[in-house]
Amino acid sequence: MVRLIALFSPPEDPDAFDVHYRDVHAPIIRRYPGLRRFRLTRPDGAGGRSSPFHLMAEMSFDSRADLDEALASDPGRESGRDLRNFARAGLALFIADDAAATDG
Amino acid sequence: MVRLIALFSPPEDPDAFDVHYRDVHAPIIRRYPGLRRFRLTRPDGAGGRSSPFHLMAEMSFDSRADLDEALASDPGRESGRDLRNFARAGLALFIADDAAATDG
Repeated sequence: MVRLIALFSPPEDPDAFDVHYRDVHAPIIRRYPGLRRFRLTRPDGAGGRSSPFHLMAEMSFDSRADLDEALASDPGRESGRDLRNFARAGLALFIADDAAATDG
Repeated sequence: MVRLIALFSPPEDPDAFDVHYRDVHAPIIRRYPGLRRFRLTRPDGAGGRSSPFHLMAEMSFDSRADLDEALASDPGRESGRDLRNFARAGLALFIADDAAATDG
């Protein structure tokens, strides 16, 4: 699998963020063509520090080509535009190709 | 599973970082008690931007209690101290409890 991972910085208004994510953003992502899995995690802090992120979204695809196609699709572009509506505190976005991962 | 996820910011000297991680840091982590999986991924950028992280390490445990025990163990404390030797560019560390994750 290839994962698109989005890590959202702690928002100013966490409740408003969560409502927007659930009611507006997640439904757009569920329309991504080729989406195999869409997992949401509320990170906990480690080592005595609070988590640097409010929410982790992992969106899985069969291949990098499928992921690229999803991002270039109508819902892909729509989700990108929607980030401005609720992710103003910041967002770290990257791709993890699990087939290219190694055991540590 | 419960994952301890470490995201390393791009280092000044990526080659030196990689050598230290492989030869010093990873061997310490492999001594964590209860470690079930240790996966390393080189993130790719998404949406036309480079990845904000140089390396993602995902360390999996059966439970949060096992994870906490690993971090409190001798290798857990040793790995924390070793971060100063190679992760000066920064590090985001958090815990993802996959049992508490939801489908988006």
